[in-house]
Amino acid sequence: MKTENISRREALRMGALGAAGLAMFGGINAMASETPKAKDVKFDEEYDVIVIGTGFAGLAAAAKAAQRGLSVLILEKMGRIGGNSVINGGGMAVPNNHLQKKHGIKDSNELFIKDCLKAGLGINHVELLETIANRAFDAFNFSVECGAKWQDVKPAWFGGHSVARTIVTENMSGSGVIKPMTKFVQELPGCKIVRRTKFDQFVLDDNGRVVGITARFGYRFDDKLLSDDKENKTGKPVAYGAKKGVILATGGFAADKYYRKLQDPRLGVDQDATNHKGATAGALLEAFKIGAMPIHIGWIQQGPWASPDERGFGIAPLMTQQGLFKYGMAVDVRNGKRFMNELADRKTRADAEYVILHEKADAYPVAIGTYNTFSEQLIPLLDKALQSNVMKKYETIEELAKAYGIPLKPLKESIKKYNAGVKKGVDEFGKPVKAFNGQGVEDKGPYYAVRLMPKPHHTMGGLKINTKAQVISSETHEPIPGLYAAGEVTGGTHGASRLGTVAVTDCLTFGMIAGENI
Amino acid sequence: MKTENISRREALRMGALGAAGLAMFGGINAMASETPKAKDVKFDEEYDVIVIGTGFAGLAAAAKAAQRGLSVLILEKMGRIGGNSVINGGGMAVPNNHLQKKHGIKDSNELFIKDCLKAGLGINHVELLETIANRAFDAFNFSVECGAKWQDVKPAWFGGHSVARTIVTENMSGSGVIKPMTKFVQELPGCKIVRRTKFDQFVLDDNGRVVGITARFGYRFDDKLLSDDKENKTGKPVAYGAKKGVILATGGFAADKYYRKLQDPRLGVDQDATNHKGATAGALLEAFKIGAMPIHIGWIQQGPWASPDERGFGIAPLMTQQGLFKYGMAVDVRNGKRFMNELADRKTRADAEYVILHEKADAYPVAIGTYNTFSEQLIPLLDKALQSNVMKKYETIEELAKAYGIPLKPLKESIKKYNAGVKKGVDEFGKPVKAFNGQGVEDKGPYYAVRLMPKPHHTMGGLKINTKAQVISSETHEPIPGLYAAGEVTGGTHGASRLGTVAVTDCLTFGMIAGENI
Repeated sequence: MKTENISRREALRMGALGAAGLAMFGGINAMASETPKAKDVKFDEEYDVIVIGTGFAGLAAAAKAAQRGLSVLILEKMGRIGGNSVINGGGMAVPNNHLQKKHGIKDSNELFIKDCLKAGLGINHVELLETIANRAFDAFNFSVECGAKWQDVKPAWFGGHSVARTIVTENMSGSGVIKPMTKFVQELPGCKIVRRTKFDQFVLDDNGRVVGITARFGYRFDDKLLSDDKENKTGKPVAYGAKKGVILATGGFAADKYYRKLQDPRLGVDQDATNHKGATAGALLEAFKIGAMPIHIGWIQQGPWASPDERGFGIAPLMTQQGLFKYGMAVDVRNGKRFMNELADRKTRADAEYVILHEKADAYPVAIGTYNTFSEQLIPLLDKALQSNVMKKYETIEELAKAYGIPLKPLKESIKKYNAGVKKGVDEFGKPVKAFNGQGVEDKGPYYAVRLMPKPHHTMGGLKINTKAQVISSETHEPIPGLYAAGEVTGGTHGASRLGTVAVTDCLTFGMIAGENI
Repeated sequence: MKTENISRREALRMGALGAAGLAMFGGINAMASETPKAKDVKFDEEYDVIVIGTGFAGLAAAAKAAQRGLSVLILEKMGRIGGNSVINGGGMAVPNNHLQKKHGIKDSNELFIKDCLKAGLGINHVELLETIANRAFDAFNFSVECGAKWQDVKPAWFGGHSVARTIVTENMSGSGVIKPMTKFVQELPGCKIVRRTKFDQFVLDDNGRVVGITARFGYRFDDKLLSDDKENKTGKPVAYGAKKGVILATGGFAADKYYRKLQDPRLGVDQDATNHKGATAGALLEAFKIGAMPIHIGWIQQGPWASPDERGFGIAPLMTQQGLFKYGMAVDVRNGKRFMNELADRKTRADAEYVILHEKADAYPVAIGTYNTFSEQLIPLLDKALQSNVMKKYETIEELAKAYGIPLKPLKESIKKYNAGVKKGVDEFGKPVKAFNGQGVEDKGPYYAVRLMPKPHHTMGGLKINTKAQVISSETHEPIPGLYAAGEVTGGTHGASRLGTVAVTDCLTFGMIAGENI
């Protein structure tokens, strides 16, 4: 992992060094393609609606449009359906849901919006949050209609929410929505999913209306490329007409090695994300070229609870969030000292980890703790985490210190100091240790440890939509005719930081709305 | 001022309510114009270079290009030359400058970059900062060559800089650079400034190269419009060819009532900015349409030291920053309590003020203090601030409380509590009161007061350039042929927050570089 701000080597690789970059690439691709016009394009096939992407937003949009009797072509660039949604935890925040009522939990739209605004630092687009608050339960019910199975228990209480309002799928995964919804749309007449087909450009008519797209059929995503969007030329060019319009549901760009680094140069080119490999910015950037407006580009939510010792989201977040970060502590391996409030917000903690990784690229901080810190429901998973080598177990603190090259004496002092603070109810980093009832790192092993590295998780920025999921034009400030968008490709809803389990709500709700309105 | 997140009324005015918005505007302007092609355009005039904007960046670019013997047309949409630059304070941070050497101040490129990265929260584009560090002194000397007069004294030490490195113009205003530079370019053969001419669109050739622009001659900016860029149709259409290319130096969008609010909905549509009225996003958004890449859009630096009781930057920032915020305090008028560390960073303080203004739109917090808080060099300016009614003076705390409707008893308690903290060297908001030598709000009047309102000051986001000031394409990741940009219209250099007096450095340096390379 490279943690320095765009290093010379990376800058060169990214073509950011001007003349040097130019010389390297020899001017290949210097010519940008212009947006094709309908009169110059012969469509291979025509549909009422084209949906790009098969995550929550895309499938909800397609299902709703097809249910209305429209013919729908759904394109997926990857070999498998579901994008990030299918590897998601399956929690959907639904204000005022039936399970809250059943279990006597009082909620309101106002409270939901207030929670989102607090996490989003007040820069959220309230009209989009209002729409989500008003329609989330409809979207939940629509997912049930499509075959999704949700747990019929008391809603889960996620961090940052004022009340328990999250409903979780039966299999505790987004696949619990994606799989039945895929089946649902495939069984609807006139609705078709085509995989390994990559959207390239919009096709406009003479009035600037989106009337179709160009794409490549048989395309194969290549995650070894720095920029698949730019470099990958696989697939056979095709063009599809969309009589009613196109719905963009292409997700975020947390896995886009090139574009995400321009927004946060602390991200190494090869740094892992919690996202699937295909989460790139290509379609979003193409939308800007027909006048979609960039909102909040640059806010990337990164998970400070992730580990460099596994791919993707993995098991580390569970072990740290519900385990080591609680009564345990995170230390800088170079000096054995703590460096953050282990329970601060995501951005604060990721920033603190980056300070260390920026000084020394491989000095991954380590979260340590004893058995007492793991919550009850985590106990059955400890073995899995240990077997995968993401979490390590040491009988003594000496062994742990040696394994990570942490100077022993300062480490022992840090533990002592931290425990003393816990006893007094005062922490040097403001961790709410008062609530710990004196629980800290115990004096006796075994000790558990997980190495830490922030992983990009959600890109808050995207294009501007209105409450009907229509994409707004920078020139007219009105909808770009024939263009809709939903989910992570849009910006504004979550402001500076998205609250946990509101992504599923956003995607299903605005996907459904796009399908209703197109 | 509206401080709520996009209110229904504002959303309606902004056309953000979907169907409602559409109905209101009746679909007028629904058709976006496509980027014109060279083969369809007859140029009225042709030049080697077209520069758009007459601030520091535009004039430096034009001067350098014209000095190289190129013919240059400089367009300014406003009636006066100089944009925000001419109302700027005239301070330029120049690492390793001659005055530092003369006065024994040690500086380095590394230190400058470190300072910028700290303010920018680590997301700055380091290769751009390196370029600025390497070339700032050249840019300073170039400004001198163009006739700018700078103070020959010990450099000024601005907040956030590790050392004193800021050189200030003799007249303590950006006009000290803009005026001589305007004269300089106008006297160069083949260099021409045309005012009241608004850039509309780029003209591309068949290879995607920028070969000219369309514009409107005789255009009159209208600040009564919600969006001058969208609504103002004045001026006669013209087209200008640019054989070598176009340099975009159109500045930021802190005065763009529409687009800035999409990035920070806390900003009221009619909320004043420190910027001149013409600081809008039109040209930036047009650049996205030909593939320029948005970077850090959404980070707007707002001045927590500004007042609603005057237009623009005004005199309040001096009275608060170097006066009332020091030994004095800021209070919530509704309860007489303090609500922030008055010396925290800009974003923290602006956010704290917005919390109040979001709860009650006209509850402007008030900074109060006694004579002891004003720094020596401020004393001659107190009368001016009082005469303009931006600062008010009251003989007793009772009079002050009455004037602002602050409950008296809690206000007195707040002062007592604050002063006690100052004596102890501990402040409830973490203000560094230890350094105050016991100085707080004195027991006897007169008391001074300034109402507070954050004003948008600098938009960090913009388009991506490389170290040669070439605009990078989202599709090719290489320069868009024939397109250069410099100054606030670009993004990345300053990261999340720009350090004071680095704007002038950025604009003059990258303006000069654009003029060298085109």
